[in-house]
Amino acid sequence: MHFYILTLFPDMVMNGLTDSIIGRAMKNGYLKIEAVNIRDYAFNKHQSVDDYPYGGGAGMLMQAEPVYQAYSAVLEKIKSENPEAQPRVVYLSPQGGTFSQEMAEDYAKEEDVILLCGHYEGIDERVLEEIVTDYVSIGDYVLTGGELPAMVMIDTISRLIPGVLHNDVSAEFDSFQDNLLEYPQYSRPEEWHGKKVPEVLMSGHHANIEKWRHEQSLIRTAKNRPDLLEKAELTENDKKVLETIYKV
Amino acid sequence: MHFYILTLFPDMVMNGLTDSIIGRAMKNGYLKIEAVNIRDYAFNKHQSVDDYPYGGGAGMLMQAEPVYQAYSAVLEKIKSENPEAQPRVVYLSPQGGTFSQEMAEDYAKEEDVILLCGHYEGIDERVLEEIVTDYVSIGDYVLTGGELPAMVMIDTISRLIPGVLHNDVSAEFDSFQDNLLEYPQYSRPEEWHGKKVPEVLMSGHHANIEKWRHEQSLIRTAKNRPDLLEKAELTENDKKVLETIYKV
Repeated sequence: MHFYILTLFPDMVMNGLTDSIIGRAMKNGYLKIEAVNIRDYAFNKHQSVDDYPYGGGAGMLMQAEPVYQAYSAVLEKIKSENPEAQPRVVYLSPQGGTFSQEMAEDYAKEEDVILLCGHYEGIDERVLEEIVTDYVSIGDYVLTGGELPAMVMIDTISRLIPGVLHNDVSAEFDSFQDNLLEYPQYSRPEEWHGKKVPEVLMSGHHANIEKWRHEQSLIRTAKNRPDLLEKAELTENDKKVLETIYKV
Repeated sequence: MHFYILTLFPDMVMNGLTDSIIGRAMKNGYLKIEAVNIRDYAFNKHQSVDDYPYGGGAGMLMQAEPVYQAYSAVLEKIKSENPEAQPRVVYLSPQGGTFSQEMAEDYAKEEDVILLCGHYEGIDERVLEEIVTDYVSIGDYVLTGGELPAMVMIDTISRLIPGVLHNDVSAEFDSFQDNLLEYPQYSRPEEWHGKKVPEVLMSGHHANIEKWRHEQSLIRTAKNRPDLLEKAELTENDKKVLETIYKV
């Protein structure tokens, strides 16, 4: 999978993604991530890419043309490898639908994704109308730019691509994959600050361990995110466990 | 305001935050951001900080003691400046309540905030129980670690701190501040790809411009995020505008 990020801060994006798991996946060829500096497509000698908004107001706006040129260059590159390609162009914006694990699974099927990061007060509406296919927000809060949201999307999507995580099992058991939160986990030592690892985890009895973990997931979800339970597929036994919690 | 980030990837966090607006605010002394490497508090000569989870399962878990030691060192530092300090300790986790603009406004009142970033399969439950005061999730999706979420929180909170944005006006008119999405914006040239800037914005008539922008905000919110409207404070006139939209 190939991500292209159109941004005024290419170093920030690349530095934030090349550590750890994503960095290793890039090295191993599972992922390509390319940050394209919109400033390289400025059409004036001062390399300026922003201007005042019509109608007044605080702050500066990114102009249409440099964004359009940066996009066109990326599109041409993609089409040179696959003339049929129609890559999705994501604008990171509070205007968008809220990003979710389901959306990530959908994006993970794409060959190429272009992510457009606004900065300052945003981008001239006309170029957005012309090139953007998807408006995505990572949550109901306001950031200084689209760079961190783009990194969040890339990280979330990337770990769903086969080969990116060392063990494919890992992604499967994570929170949200089945609309349940993860169970608590413990590592050595057996006792730490007077707190012991729950006995069942040291029993070696796999069925009991799975049962305990699943119940812990149910309990935590009921306690912290009851809204998720409505979307979860619950067995008859799960419902019994939950009834016990709600009775307490 | 002073942010401390406990992480295994201090460079990633610092590189992702020092560009642009946040970087300038750090330079100008409005913000301090310090990444503390948990690995520096490993208690064995191999500097290892992770181990297998009890009960089996994929992946590695961050152990309790290095996290606790890194936290203790930061707490000691904070208390040396203010013995009364009781800093909030945020664990970035899908278990948490979902981060929002209201939460950001609340955090912006703090002097010191400690952010704890898990990686791999998470952190030994016992140290979380002992030190964490707030569990926060940035959204319903799974990331490879807590670093990007910590950066998202810091960016969102920081821009609410007076002096961080050049103009205090800017934060006020953003999306979510009044539960309405932002209106479309336009910059030069007047005509781009055959699309003209809406005439009202070039009229110089401020009252009309404000009216148009407010209506655009209402229309966009109704179209893209009708759920937000329920929380917005709407005037009688706003309701009339919305009725017109819903009739169409």
